[in-house]
Amino acid sequence: MSTPITIFDTTLRDGTQGEGISLTAEDKVKIALKLDALGVHYIEGGNPGSNSKDIEFFNRIRDLNLHAKLTAFGSTRRKNSICEQDINLKHLIESGAKAATLVGKSWDFHVHTALQTTLEENLAMIYESLAYVNQNGMEALFDAEHFFDGYKANPDYALAALAKARDAGSKWIVLCDTNGGTLPGEIHEIVSRVTSLIDTPIGIHTHNDCELAVANSLAAITAGARQVQGTINGYGERCGNANLASIIPNLQLKMGYHCVSDEQLKSLTNVARYVSEIANVHLPVNQPYVGNAAFAHKGGIHVSAIMKDSKTYEHISPELVGNKQRVLVSELAGQSNIVSKAQELGLDIGTDGLKSRNVIERVKELEHQGYQFEGADASLELLLRDAYGSTKEVFTVDSFKIIVEKNGASLVTEAIMKITVGDEQVYTVAEGNGPVNALDNALRKALIQFYPGIRDIHLTDYKVRVLNEKDATAAKVRVLIESTDFNDTWSTVGVSSNVIEASWEALVDSIRYALLAMDKEDSTSKSPRESLGLINH
Amino acid sequence: MSTPITIFDTTLRDGTQGEGISLTAEDKVKIALKLDALGVHYIEGGNPGSNSKDIEFFNRIRDLNLHAKLTAFGSTRRKNSICEQDINLKHLIESGAKAATLVGKSWDFHVHTALQTTLEENLAMIYESLAYVNQNGMEALFDAEHFFDGYKANPDYALAALAKARDAGSKWIVLCDTNGGTLPGEIHEIVSRVTSLIDTPIGIHTHNDCELAVANSLAAITAGARQVQGTINGYGERCGNANLASIIPNLQLKMGYHCVSDEQLKSLTNVARYVSEIANVHLPVNQPYVGNAAFAHKGGIHVSAIMKDSKTYEHISPELVGNKQRVLVSELAGQSNIVSKAQELGLDIGTDGLKSRNVIERVKELEHQGYQFEGADASLELLLRDAYGSTKEVFTVDSFKIIVEKNGASLVTEAIMKITVGDEQVYTVAEGNGPVNALDNALRKALIQFYPGIRDIHLTDYKVRVLNEKDATAAKVRVLIESTDFNDTWSTVGVSSNVIEASWEALVDSIRYALLAMDKEDSTSKSPRESLGLINH
Repeated sequence: MSTPITIFDTTLRDGTQGEGISLTAEDKVKIALKLDALGVHYIEGGNPGSNSKDIEFFNRIRDLNLHAKLTAFGSTRRKNSICEQDINLKHLIESGAKAATLVGKSWDFHVHTALQTTLEENLAMIYESLAYVNQNGMEALFDAEHFFDGYKANPDYALAALAKARDAGSKWIVLCDTNGGTLPGEIHEIVSRVTSLIDTPIGIHTHNDCELAVANSLAAITAGARQVQGTINGYGERCGNANLASIIPNLQLKMGYHCVSDEQLKSLTNVARYVSEIANVHLPVNQPYVGNAAFAHKGGIHVSAIMKDSKTYEHISPELVGNKQRVLVSELAGQSNIVSKAQELGLDIGTDGLKSRNVIERVKELEHQGYQFEGADASLELLLRDAYGSTKEVFTVDSFKIIVEKNGASLVTEAIMKITVGDEQVYTVAEGNGPVNALDNALRKALIQFYPGIRDIHLTDYKVRVLNEKDATAAKVRVLIESTDFNDTWSTVGVSSNVIEASWEALVDSIRYALLAMDKEDSTSKSPRESLGLINH
Repeated sequence: MSTPITIFDTTLRDGTQGEGISLTAEDKVKIALKLDALGVHYIEGGNPGSNSKDIEFFNRIRDLNLHAKLTAFGSTRRKNSICEQDINLKHLIESGAKAATLVGKSWDFHVHTALQTTLEENLAMIYESLAYVNQNGMEALFDAEHFFDGYKANPDYALAALAKARDAGSKWIVLCDTNGGTLPGEIHEIVSRVTSLIDTPIGIHTHNDCELAVANSLAAITAGARQVQGTINGYGERCGNANLASIIPNLQLKMGYHCVSDEQLKSLTNVARYVSEIANVHLPVNQPYVGNAAFAHKGGIHVSAIMKDSKTYEHISPELVGNKQRVLVSELAGQSNIVSKAQELGLDIGTDGLKSRNVIERVKELEHQGYQFEGADASLELLLRDAYGSTKEVFTVDSFKIIVEKNGASLVTEAIMKITVGDEQVYTVAEGNGPVNALDNALRKALIQFYPGIRDIHLTDYKVRVLNEKDATAAKVRVLIESTDFNDTWSTVGVSSNVIEASWEALVDSIRYALLAMDKEDSTSKSPRESLGLINH
């Protein structure tokens, strides 16, 4: 039986301190449900004393019967005061959360400098506040802020703060490396000392300022801590909190501890991507375990070894965390990458390698021009299908014109377009929120009579990147478009010195990718990947 | 005297295996010069046996007399062959590099599965190849691929591979955690064992698949390794290589080792940002030590403590690595953040706090609409200056019209604009690479007679983000524009459901920010920050 580790998620509280992260109460409810399904044990929802959005979240979540313990965050009472008159503690108790995390000082320097009170008063604040939430029927956890800095400066005082929290009936005492400056060896030594002195279960809360938050969390567990606090994707102030999306698989797959069920662990990639989506923060492709490139192989030699046995260049099987292996195409790649990609698509690559060599030349040439197929699977697939001869023409564009007119507060954008489908020419006009949206609308309007299924397809993301920034007037731009039909998501790319042309190219690829999967006038059921034979292969 | 650690940079070789990273020979030369100034000891420039771009790099760099040892990378000779006939070793020797890193197998599984040869032949490949480059006047380094996996599977064979490298005269033996799956405790134990058995100096080369590459590098150093291999910003295949931008300050500022001079360490942030710029990869704001948010403070309580003593929430002084403290404005922030920002700008905030409360309400309202000022310093500054009454009107826009026309291969974009400067109305037209560029050109054309200094200002980046992706037709977009006048760089933001309107708003803010710093018709010398009094304050 492996030792259980308690996972305490603070994405909704400490995570929202991260730059560029802002969650509505509705966003928080969605994320909480996802975290609950992942199987984390505590969900810290926010600080009801600090803002009304968090109070709204607690009101909405309390009836949803989470498996996880819903936790509210606050500080120990104000100095020279009493708990009964502390407005923040009042909000905490009224939140309806089952548990309360109270943060308090354990570094004498902070007591003097930030709190500007006496060492004795701080100890009283810790004891009284934790006892007070306990008496009010909440499970109490103590976050010992700056514990490691405090211990290094004045171990007796830091330990005295913990003892007060224990005496007040805290269920957990959590040691925080608030500034993120402590090293794994120090964490191991100090946590070992604490667990030998304090019999309350110990938790660890680290920050990533030295790029060591994950290592520090693991070091604390090895030294006897039994709870890890962190956030999904490591969101948090400055360099972020400890990343649970790396800590959970490290503890469970590599170190033999038990955090969540094997089934739940398989949802990890989905949870990490979902949270990044709701938080509206791009998930780094190279994020460990859950990133889109975490099991991607680019180098030609690696790819040929991977095709022999995936253990050669993979430390775990990606399926264990719900991720998957990918083979990237790039100018660094040997022929084996292209061939493997074409085989994945079920294309006939022939036997003489001639077609493949031509495709590689074409990919190299396009990459040289600024195309990047790593983030544009659908454009690459069209290119491969065209090259290996498995596509047909769905429409041609004869001309278009866009007019944007601003007069005072009014701004009107319209696109006029002539296209040919089969032997019919269609002439159409549509408005839009901008030139690309107007083009998109006009193109759909022209095509819908031939492909009714197009109504289910829509753009979900549109990104523009200036390529050679140094030379602004002649700068090339790369546009990435992401589209969905609810079942499936695909990405396409366009490159040009004109942003409209680049957008148009990506847009046409996106629609073409979808239409190739549809039978004309009978096209509502299957997703593109399904129809193109990409699913169940 | 602190123990010296040798820094081996492989950004130009292993770093280019990262998804989305592609460097020209010219890019590589620029980065090599920057790395040399940072003081790294080895610069691995590429694999001259694998592609002609790397040969071009070596040809161009060899006359530039770097302080660092220029190093070429390659594999041990092919199986069942001789070094004299190995085309890759030939390219390696002809590269003109002073040192050669040869990668070879130390995991028996890989010898059988990937290499498909005998254990004896692999040992011969290691010995003969290293001896061969040595005989050809290059310093030889051995990269023991998958050493930790190999050691765990068959320690005798893994150590035998190292012994062959030693016997062949390798100057360094580098232990590679190629798949990135090893934990710090294992690294420490295995490196300790190797350093007790092999007297050749040991290096460490780790990957970040468990988010432990930095911790693993430090663990190896603690166990006696004396060289760290890594890349700037951790670029590299899958989850990346060990990040030198975190390892160097950890070793030098926290662990008492010596890597580079204190002066060179102060260039670290600049080097990391420069490399990300050349590699055309966004530097994560939360990247430890060098990220734009690494020393940024958002929470109201943290900010008031930071203003009392920055040690309260900073693990090191940001200046040591060339970074700086920032105070963020956000809906989570208390009034202290806005006040601190206004004070930083030298604005008169009054005494009653009324103005500041109004500004906070305005910022909250805009953030609610989708604005994000954290990445748009200049827009925030304009907002604060407007609110605290220190700006003047520089121009007004009466109307504009954009026409984009595509006919066959031809695409023409033009903007027509009416603006008023003082009491003069200007009516102008310009072409562009796209609607925003055409607007930008028309606006400059209209303004240049009043503000000649505008010719030095240009757009360096243009980013579009769809905000509420779920609802594509009514989706809002946020546009971020970065501009420069060569001395200074500033960012502005616009939000609208129409991408042209959002772009226009950011563009007008950018030009307005620059013009406010200029005296009409005498405006070529100072940078905006300088003229607005933002420098030397």
